[in-house]
Amino acid sequence: MMKANKYTFGLLISIGINIILLSYIIILYHSGSNQFIERQCSLSWSEKAAAEAEAVAAISCSGHGRAYLDGPVNYEQSEGQVRPVCECYDCYGGLDCSILSPECPADADSGDPIFLEPFWMEHATESAVMISGWHRMSYRYVDYTTMSSELEKYIRKMHAIVGNAITEGRYLVFGIGSSQLLNAAVYALSSDNSSSPSNVLATIPFYPMYNAQTVFFHSENFQFQGDSNTWILNNNNNNIPTNNKNVVEFVTSPNNPDGELKTSVVLGAKTIYDHAYFWPHFTPIPSPSDRDLMIFTLSKLTGHAGTRFGWAVIKDKDVYDKMLNYISVADMSISKDTQLRVLQLLKVAVKDHGKPLFEFAYDKMRDRWARLTSVFSKSTRFSLQHRHPLHCSFFNQTRLPSPAYAWVKCEREEDQDCGKVLETDGKIKGRSGSIFSAGDRCVRLSLIKSQDDFELLLKRLTQLVALENNINGGAVQIM
Amino acid sequence: MMKANKYTFGLLISIGINIILLSYIIILYHSGSNQFIERQCSLSWSEKAAAEAEAVAAISCSGHGRAYLDGPVNYEQSEGQVRPVCECYDCYGGLDCSILSPECPADADSGDPIFLEPFWMEHATESAVMISGWHRMSYRYVDYTTMSSELEKYIRKMHAIVGNAITEGRYLVFGIGSSQLLNAAVYALSSDNSSSPSNVLATIPFYPMYNAQTVFFHSENFQFQGDSNTWILNNNNNNIPTNNKNVVEFVTSPNNPDGELKTSVVLGAKTIYDHAYFWPHFTPIPSPSDRDLMIFTLSKLTGHAGTRFGWAVIKDKDVYDKMLNYISVADMSISKDTQLRVLQLLKVAVKDHGKPLFEFAYDKMRDRWARLTSVFSKSTRFSLQHRHPLHCSFFNQTRLPSPAYAWVKCEREEDQDCGKVLETDGKIKGRSGSIFSAGDRCVRLSLIKSQDDFELLLKRLTQLVALENNINGGAVQIM
Repeated sequence: MMKANKYTFGLLISIGINIILLSYIIILYHSGSNQFIERQCSLSWSEKAAAEAEAVAAISCSGHGRAYLDGPVNYEQSEGQVRPVCECYDCYGGLDCSILSPECPADADSGDPIFLEPFWMEHATESAVMISGWHRMSYRYVDYTTMSSELEKYIRKMHAIVGNAITEGRYLVFGIGSSQLLNAAVYALSSDNSSSPSNVLATIPFYPMYNAQTVFFHSENFQFQGDSNTWILNNNNNNIPTNNKNVVEFVTSPNNPDGELKTSVVLGAKTIYDHAYFWPHFTPIPSPSDRDLMIFTLSKLTGHAGTRFGWAVIKDKDVYDKMLNYISVADMSISKDTQLRVLQLLKVAVKDHGKPLFEFAYDKMRDRWARLTSVFSKSTRFSLQHRHPLHCSFFNQTRLPSPAYAWVKCEREEDQDCGKVLETDGKIKGRSGSIFSAGDRCVRLSLIKSQDDFELLLKRLTQLVALENNINGGAVQIM
Repeated sequence: MMKANKYTFGLLISIGINIILLSYIIILYHSGSNQFIERQCSLSWSEKAAAEAEAVAAISCSGHGRAYLDGPVNYEQSEGQVRPVCECYDCYGGLDCSILSPECPADADSGDPIFLEPFWMEHATESAVMISGWHRMSYRYVDYTTMSSELEKYIRKMHAIVGNAITEGRYLVFGIGSSQLLNAAVYALSSDNSSSPSNVLATIPFYPMYNAQTVFFHSENFQFQGDSNTWILNNNNNNIPTNNKNVVEFVTSPNNPDGELKTSVVLGAKTIYDHAYFWPHFTPIPSPSDRDLMIFTLSKLTGHAGTRFGWAVIKDKDVYDKMLNYISVADMSISKDTQLRVLQLLKVAVKDHGKPLFEFAYDKMRDRWARLTSVFSKSTRFSLQHRHPLHCSFFNQTRLPSPAYAWVKCEREEDQDCGKVLETDGKIKGRSGSIFSAGDRCVRLSLIKSQDDFELLLKRLTQLVALENNINGGAVQIM
C-alpha cells in the first residue's frame, strides 16, 4: 500500500507537470501576451518588406558580388519565386560571381568608397531602416524647413566627436552630395551685383569638378580661372588682399588627388573649404577646422556615395541664405527618404564616440598603405606622394596620413604618359594627372574601393614592379 | 502488486508524455525548422528596424498629426523609451494633436499632395521598403549607369497602363523632382554655340519656377523672356517658324495654376512639355502625349513630394546626352535609396492596371470639386475656372477635369487684390495670381492637401460666400 501511494503521488505530480507543459504550449500558440510570442510576432505591415530584404541579402554571390532589392530580376524563374540576381564586382562573372576573368585590368579609377561596406554588414541590425509607404510625403518638415532637424543634430554631434570642424553657432545646408554644394557655394560667394564676374580658382592638382561646374553653368556671375598660383603671378604681383576681393578660391583639404592638407593661397579671397576627406581614416586631424564655408560629404565619411548626401557648415547668414536659395531653386530640397537613411547611419557612426567606425576605417586604410608602400619601395620607376606625420587629436597619436588615393609619379624620362604606362604595362586603370590639371606624369589610383579591387590592384602593381626589376637584372615575381 | 504495476505503468506513460511535451517546447525555442517558428521568427537583422517603424506608426496623434522615425524626440522620456513625438498638421496642437485653433487660417497655398496619404496607409504592407546599411553604397549600378534599370521598366509600364505618354523608343532621365529636370531641359535645348542666348518663354498664367530658375542661374546660354504670346507680338509678327529657332517654350499641360490642357503657341520653338499633372486623377487623358521632351514627377502621381523624384521622356539622343550631362555635373546622380523607394511605390501603383491608385485619387478629387463647385455656385463675388469635359481613355468615360488647383477670380471691381480679399475677409491663404504673372485678380487654391486642410478651406469658403449673401440680404450660414 505504501508503494502504491508512492506511485499515486508520483503519477499525480507527473500528470500535474503534463498539464503545466501542455498549457504552456497552448499559451505559446494562442496568446499574444506571452513574452516569447511578443518578441517574435509583433510585426504586421512591415514584416513582408523585412523578410524580402533578408531573403535578398542571403543570396550567395561567392563574396564577389551582391544581390539588391532593386536589382535585375531573373524572369526565367517561376512567377512566385522572382528574385534579384547576383550583380558581380568588376572582373567576376557567372550566376554566382565565382568566375574570375584572369586578364581583367585592375580598375583604380573611381573614388567609390566600398572599403567601408563590411563595416555596415557587421552593423546590419542598427543600420537598417524601414520606410513606410506614407513616410514624409510633404515637401517640408513640421518646422517648415526642408532639412531634418534630427539629422542636423547628429551631424553636429559627429563633428564634435571627431573634432574636425567647429559647428557651434554655424549654419548647416544639406545638398545632393558635396557636388551640388560646391556649385551652390560658388553662386553664393560670387558677386551678382558686380560689373565683372568673380574669378574662381583652385590650386593644381585639383578636383576637376570645380572646373566642370563653373564652365558648364556658364553663368555671368563667375568664371573659372584655373590655378591659384598662376593667377597670383599674372594678376597680382604682390598678392594684395584688396585686389582679390572678387576671387572665390577652392581649398581641398586633404587634397584630391594627393591627400595634402591645404590652406588658401590667395590673400583676401573668399574661400570654399572642401573637407570631403577630412576624417580620421584618411588624415590625422590636427585641430577642428574653423573656416567660413566648409563642405563635407557622407560618401567619404560612411562610404555611402550612392546616397548622394553632403552638407555645408557656414558662418555668414547671408551666404547661408544664398545657398539655401540655390538648393530651393535647383531642386527644392533633399529627398526625405535619403535624410531618414542618413540619420540612421549617423546614429550608428557616432556610437561609442565614433571609435568602431573610425577604427575599422583607419585600420583598413593603414593596412592598404602599408602593403602599397612595400610594393613601391622595390621600385625606382614609380614613386608615391610623400606623407608627413602629424598628431591626430581624434586617435590621440602621431601618425602618417592614409589618403584615399595614391598619387603615383612615373620617374623615367620616357614614361611621360604615366596613365598609359600603367594601363599598357601593368593592366591598371588610374585617373590621369591631366584630369587634375597636373600633366600626365602623375596618375591617381583609388585605394578605397572593395577588397577585391584592392587585391587585384596590388597584384598588378607587384607584377609591374617585378617586371621593372627583371629588366634591371632581377627575377620576375608573379603573385 | 497489480495496483502498484498499474500505477507504475501510468507513471511511465505520464513521464513519457512529459518528455515529449518538454522536447516539443525545447524544439519550439531552439529549432528553426518548425513551421510555426519559421513563419514568425525568420527575421534577424531587419527585425529591430521593422519593429521601430511599426512602433512609431502606432503612435496616436488623433488623426490630426503623425509621428515619424526621424521626427523630433521628447528627451524628457526615460532613455530607454525615447520616441518621436506627434507632429501636428496645420491648425492642430497639443501633445496628441487633438486641440484645434479656432481662428487658424485655411492654408491652401502649397501644392503638397497629401490627399494621397490615406491610399499608402491602406497599402502599408506592399509599399514598405527595408533599406539595409550596405544597400548600394556605390555611385553606380552594375550596368555603369546611375539610373536603376528596374525603376525605368516600371516607369515605362506606368505610362503604358495609363496611356498618357509614348515611351517606346524614347530615352529616360531621372532628376531631383521635376524641378531639376526643368532647368536641365533648358540647358539641353539652349544653343551653347549660338552668338545670342536662347529665349525662354511660357504662356501666362505660368508656374513661377521657369522664371526663377532661368533668372537665378544667370547663364550666358539663355534668358527668360516671359509670356509667349507677348513675345510673338513683339518679335515675330507672323509667328514664322524660322525666326523661332532660338526659342525654348515651356508648355504646362495640364497647366499650373488653371488645369487647362495646353499646346505650344510659338511655331518652330523647342518645347518642354511639363506633364506633372497629366494623370487621370487631375484630367481626362484624351490620348498619349508624344512630345519631343516631356517631364513628369512622382509628387503629383503618387503624392510623394518629399521623395524628390522626377523623370524626363526624350526623343532625341543629343538632348538626352545633354540632360544626362547636366545631372552628372550638377550633383552626379539621384540617391539610390530614393530610387529603391520609388520602385517599391510604383510596383504598388501599377497593380491591377493602376485601378486602385487612380480610382482612389480620382474619387477624392471629384468629391472635392463637387463640394467646391457647390459652394461657388452660391457666389457672384468669386468664380472658378471653367472645366471642359473630355473623353478619358484610361477610365473610358467622358468626364470633367478635376484639377489640383482652383483658379479663383474675384469678380467685383473693387476686389483687385483677390489674395488679400480671401485672406482678410475669409481667413484663407492662397497663392496670388501675380506669382503666375497673371495679375492679382486671380488666386490659386490648392485642393490636394490633407483632408483636414480641405475641410477647413471649404468651411472658410462657405463662410465667406455666406457673408456675401448676407450683405446681399441672405442669412449667414455657419458650418
